Amino acid sequence: MVEKSPTLVRLMQQLQRIPYLASKNIYRVTGYILALDSDKAQQLCAAILDAKKNIVPCKRCFTWQDREGTCAYCDSPSRDQSIICVVETWHELMAIEKTGGYRGAYHVLGGALSPLDGIEPKDLHIEELIQRVDGTIREIIIATNQTPEGEATLAYVTTQLKKKSATLPEGAAPLTYMLTCLARGVPVGASLEYIDRVTIYKALDERRPL
Amino acid sequence: MVEKSPTLVRLMQQLQRIPYLASKNIYRVTGYILALDSDKAQQLCAAILDAKKNIVPCKRCFTWQDREGTCAYCDSPSRDQSIICVVETWHELMAIEKTGGYRGAYHVLGGALSPLDGIEPKDLHIEELIQRVDGTIREIIIATNQTPEGEATLAYVTTQLKKKSATLPEGAAPLTYMLTCLARGVPVGASLEYIDRVTIYKALDERRPL
Repeated sequence: MVEKSPTLVRLMQQLQRIPYLASKNIYRVTGYILALDSDKAQQLCAAILDAKKNIVPCKRCFTWQDREGTCAYCDSPSRDQSIICVVETWHELMAIEKTGGYRGAYHVLGGALSPLDGIEPKDLHIEELIQRVDGTIREIIIATNQTPEGEATLAYVTTQLKKKSATLPEGAAPLTYMLTCLARGVPVGASLEYIDRVTIYKALDERRPL
Repeated sequence: MVEKSPTLVRLMQQLQRIPYLASKNIYRVTGYILALDSDKAQQLCAAILDAKKNIVPCKRCFTWQDREGTCAYCDSPSRDQSIICVVETWHELMAIEKTGGYRGAYHVLGGALSPLDGIEPKDLHIEELIQRVDGTIREIIIATNQTPEGEATLAYVTTQLKKKSATLPEGAAPLTYMLTCLARGVPVGASLEYIDRVTIYKALDERRPL
């Protein structure tokens, strides 16, 4: 780091831990914070500490909720609790919410399997998902990312779900949910010329009748 | 905003004010903060408030310095105080520092002229630069950005500097500094094919002997 002031270095080290803040932006964000009015900086910190204190994960679906409040997804009467959409993280959940096209429940895994990064099944909320599935569930949509890690997680979760169905205690109601994943294909608005060939292959392979 | 929890909305509103945090990253950064250990969040806020309290602009060159310390640029005996590099903001200064190729002093204007955004000469540290220039200065490098605002600022600063030279009180030592700006041309490592034609035109127009 070119900067010498220990106070400034400490601030930049703290900011650098925030993911997705490209190193070029560190200086811009640091400059913004230094140029803030003192009470604006207080407000920023109050909002951070307040959120840390009062926002906790929902015990059922692991989205964020107010400590004293109810879960916006699990406890909402307007959402269909018999469909569960399984996502890697909260910001992917928000991406789905922003479409406005999904009114079911969620299950946030908290990441994707990645042996190289030391992320194993026990580090994700997979066991909780398996526990949660019962006779009332009609559909489970696995909406992990289209990355090697996301695909591996999809495969693992699917296996675990099928294992549960196969080893139900005698006399238990059978699990009759449908297991689905997101459609793969050409993004809306894209021209084929600029799409990679694996995507085109998938779009062709998974073509649907008009 | 899709999110409903008031605590979370407040945090995201605070974060959204930080420039260059693309709206897609807001969810990632918010997720990072919520998943932090409580003491890590405390450390982040302590670093922000500590920096706000103890980092102030240098009264001479307007870079950031410790309140109790000296300016790393104005007060350093290893830097040539007879050359001033005029930059728009602190993060552009850092970009120049990272090259390791400049050992003179700086003057941070605090932005660029932009009538549409209401930024006029009085909002920038231009007057302070004019005041600062005296017989000891050998060179002033105007290193504003190659944007319309940066070019306008360059033109204004140049005019003001020349006006000062022309209206020196009788008997005062004449100002003999050189006024320069950054070279314009083809970026290092770039192939001409992918460079815009204005840049190529400038590179051709300002060609130099080998």
